[in-house]
Amino acid sequence: MTFSDLNNLNVEDTEKQLAACCGSKKWLSCLMKGFPFANENDLVSKAENCWYYECNETDWLEAFTHHPKIGDVKSLTEKFAGKEQESVAAASAELIEALAKANSDYENKFGFIFIVCATGKSAGEMLRLLQDRIKNNRAEELNIAMGEQHKITVIRFKKMIDAAAWGKLKASQLTTHVLDTSLGKPGKNITIRLKGFIDGHWQTIAQGITNNDGRIADLLPPGRILKPGKYKMVFETGEYYDSTNVKGFYPAVDIEFSVTDESHYHVPLLINPFGYSTYRGS
Amino acid sequence: MTFSDLNNLNVEDTEKQLAACCGSKKWLSCLMKGFPFANENDLVSKAENCWYYECNETDWLEAFTHHPKIGDVKSLTEKFAGKEQESVAAASAELIEALAKANSDYENKFGFIFIVCATGKSAGEMLRLLQDRIKNNRAEELNIAMGEQHKITVIRFKKMIDAAAWGKLKASQLTTHVLDTSLGKPGKNITIRLKGFIDGHWQTIAQGITNNDGRIADLLPPGRILKPGKYKMVFETGEYYDSTNVKGFYPAVDIEFSVTDESHYHVPLLINPFGYSTYRGS
Amino acid sequence: MTFSDLNNLNVEDTEKQLAACCGSKKWLSCLMKGFPFANENDLVSKAENCWYYECNETDWLEAFTHHPKIGDVKSLTEKFAGKEQESVAAASAELIEALAKANSDYENKFGFIFIVCATGKSAGEMLRLLQDRIKNNRAEELNIAMGEQHKITVIRFKKMIDAAAWGKLKASQLTTHVLDTSLGKPGKNITIRLKGFIDGHWQTIAQGITNNDGRIADLLPPGRILKPGKYKMVFETGEYYDSTNVKGFYPAVDIEFSVTDESHYHVPLLINPFGYSTYRGS
Amino acid sequence: MTFSDLNNLNVEDTEKQLAACCGSKKWLSCLMKGFPFANENDLVSKAENCWYYECNETDWLEAFTHHPKIGDVKSLTEKFAGKEQESVAAASAELIEALAKANSDYENKFGFIFIVCATGKSAGEMLRLLQDRIKNNRAEELNIAMGEQHKITVIRFKKMIDAAAWGKLKASQLTTHVLDTSLGKPGKNITIRLKGFIDGHWQTIAQGITNNDGRIADLLPPGRILKPGKYKMVFETGEYYDSTNVKGFYPAVDIEFSVTDESHYHVPLLINPFGYSTYRGS
Repeated sequence: MTFSDLNNLNVEDTEKQLAACCGSKKWLSCLMKGFPFANENDLVSKAENCWYYECNETDWLEAFTHHPKIGDVKSLTEKFAGKEQESVAAASAELIEALAKANSDYENKFGFIFIVCATGKSAGEMLRLLQDRIKNNRAEELNIAMGEQHKITVIRFKKMIDAAAWGKLKASQLTTHVLDTSLGKPGKNITIRLKGFIDGHWQTIAQGITNNDGRIADLLPPGRILKPGKYKMVFETGEYYDSTNVKGFYPAVDIEFSVTDESHYHVPLLINPFGYSTYRGS
Repeated sequence: MTFSDLNNLNVEDTEKQLAACCGSKKWLSCLMKGFPFANENDLVSKAENCWYYECNETDWLEAFTHHPKIGDVKSLTEKFAGKEQESVAAASAELIEALAKANSDYENKFGFIFIVCATGKSAGEMLRLLQDRIKNNRAEELNIAMGEQHKITVIRFKKMIDAAAWGKLKASQLTTHVLDTSLGKPGKNITIRLKGFIDGHWQTIAQGITNNDGRIADLLPPGRILKPGKYKMVFETGEYYDSTNVKGFYPAVDIEFSVTDESHYHVPLLINPFGYSTYRGS
Repeated sequence: MTFSDLNNLNVEDTEKQLAACCGSKKWLSCLMKGFPFANENDLVSKAENCWYYECNETDWLEAFTHHPKIGDVKSLTEKFAGKEQESVAAASAELIEALAKANSDYENKFGFIFIVCATGKSAGEMLRLLQDRIKNNRAEELNIAMGEQHKITVIRFKKMIDAAAWGKLKASQLTTHVLDTSLGKPGKNITIRLKGFIDGHWQTIAQGITNNDGRIADLLPPGRILKPGKYKMVFETGEYYDSTNVKGFYPAVDIEFSVTDESHYHVPLLINPFGYSTYRGS
Repeated sequence: MTFSDLNNLNVEDTEKQLAACCGSKKWLSCLMKGFPFANENDLVSKAENCWYYECNETDWLEAFTHHPKIGDVKSLTEKFAGKEQESVAAASAELIEALAKANSDYENKFGFIFIVCATGKSAGEMLRLLQDRIKNNRAEELNIAMGEQHKITVIRFKKMIDAAAWGKLKASQLTTHVLDTSLGKPGKNITIRLKGFIDGHWQTIAQGITNNDGRIADLLPPGRILKPGKYKMVFETGEYYDSTNVKGFYPAVDIEFSVTDESHYHVPLLINPFGYSTYRGS
């Protein structure tokens, strides 16, 4: 389907297409007010606004329930829920079992299933993410799951509409890059929590693990714009050094910064066991 | 009085001397168990142990009540409470009034008077400290006031015993130094909070303002040893840049680090508006 | 012409095509030994080998003479020598005159014309480059001009062969990025000299000026591989600060590093007036 | 002898005393023009001026010849030339022999004996210094030896005049501190060359090796003031990493900076294998 194919659908068919991208009724009715859409960016931008600013907890939870439950062993060993999660299939039986257990623990703790944009993630990475995220409180996990759902929504838009001008869609507004300057290599497998200062408290709003290049490509969903304010990224450098048997001085690195506009923010970390630097990059 | 003069006093006179250094009965009786003392360091070390580990909130508050109340305008305009606070006298009438008001607000909020080791501090610096510290919670202020009382105790020891081997007394176990590498100058007038990770929470345990050389000489009382664990220093860099009309990227710089032994920890900060570094110095 | 069109030409026609890319007879005969070429990368790689390792000063100078002389006012005000240099045309009369003068000075000093890969460079940038490069010695300028000629050769290959797999051609093996962390902005218009340690001396082998993003995209020609050894980049930070009326501590920043293999080397500079950092990036 | 004892000596006796501190006749006659001296700093300051700005190569070489030759095995195994060099005595026979050989090589290359302020230096450190300094050219070694002679002169002043106000004598105008932030330890045993930009060339003017604290206390003689200009310190980081079997990216670190006034310059280096920083400290 091309973009104009979408715009030329009747309302009922359009709703059917969009509902397959995100399962919240409130989100759908909000988004349909903008139909037809000016272009791909307009679609994503309206989807973002409806999701973050018009929906509430009830709506977010409703969307989560439309994901196939991937918490049990049977479902985890099959290929389900679309292409996003196919990498899970390659995991060992033990890993699958650990994932199943972690999913179940997660749902027990928070009352909703674990939502993650699984594209490109292995079962091992998903388990690591689950184990990291289960330490958050419920409000934080709701923030993170919202972001993950929105990433999934955008990915589904991209599958739905072929050959679209998706290249123009801005990637994550906030990016980072961890370099281990003792090794001259990227700092990989480091958990990063992005926190916002919300209602007088620091609250995690996104979370990920650095890849082999020391980056998290989708710390924020594409097109998502942070409101002006104070944010911080917390890098779990203690775990990083423990895992490589290096004695480090920094249990965590906590970089607080100001977001003042819609421009791109690149905030890298240069780390070594007894020193680190950061700067606003470009 | 020399150190051996002190050791040669009878118990009653010794108690009189020591009670003038810190007003807690529990502290005094604990300290007297160690009398006579091996040397100056032994006296300070026992005083520290009694104060931090044998006393409790009741004892700390009792010691605080033995300070002359410096909160009202009359007392602030005189020279009182020993040499430590003489610098206050030079302040203007408005400043004195602001100090009086801040002292009163402080006592109303926390239920005890503002304790600060005033040596070398001007009235303006004391006001700034009061305004900074009043933002803390009561448990944090109790921590900080304990440290300040202990610094005062050690200063009084030094006045009581002439020509002592005080040079061997170790200075603050933790030191820092702020350099503004945009200016090539020390970062002065920056509030720093030292926090410990206590009972699962970050709690301020000491607080100060950098001097003209970008340092806080007595962030910790001399001889005080931190228990192994996680600590952080939080530098109020946002205020610093606001006060110099520079637009900075960092509302605060938060350096978390591990204390593993009794050695000296030097943790400097090199700051510029869009980048900073830290390292473990020597 | 497609790549296979080239390979299907007879020898004479192929020579005519390649001779238009670089005017050295020795280079051409060396390159023709490799005809037909396996693919685009093979062509570039052989061209590089012939140029750097089979040709000598006579051959390099011969190639330089095949460039239209761009040193006089008339030629500079026209559009000549192919698309590479069209940006020159937009310059003012004064600028053109200054360029003509600088070209003439250059030729008088070194005995060959100023060779520069002008793609994307304005007349002002070219003048700045001329004024920078004229300070080098003849051996250094010969090195630099060789590199510039090779960049031009590769650009001409790309124009000659349409739709080729040029995307696979590796960009500059060595890259840098200057960030001014006092401003949170790229460090632009900074002259950088790349020097190699050749026969016991440091000799400039490439030279450029950082663009608006603080980078020099083509410090080395695409596909060019540095021999293992010691290299340094010298950043003219004194001029940079002078031009912005900032008092800086560093007349120049000189970063020496080891090249040990064919991998990509990213060596950024984070600069502020009284401090700087560098690291091997990725 | 007190300072006023010195000032009360007759001219002949004063000359005898001062001649024992530095063996150049020109220096002595220049210095005697300032006799009697206002205070210790005045003596040192005049001695510096006479030495650096009134003497020439002939005078410097004359002073060097007044040092007992310490190049042969016999003399090296004894204790000679005053207290400055007593540490040499503790060395093993092999070390003494290597020292003797190196001294002889040095004198053969430069035509004057190896001058070094040996205070606090072991025979091993002296050998390392000899091996480092023999790589310099003659003009550079003359610069360095001049500085070493002046340090010796000042040390002899201090021994000659008891209980003097030597504490007020400023230490080295330029200091550095190397920290290895991979280890959280000082960078020790690193050769540093201080170079000045003299007559259009970089020339080594002082040289030393970092001690266990990562510092060189006397890189410049006490009281010596650098003329405004460009200077650089070159740190032999390649050797440092080689000696600790760490693969590093930096064969050397070369920090160029501007001296604009008589204030103290602290220029530290924070090094790790794939990154480094420097700043102007305080």
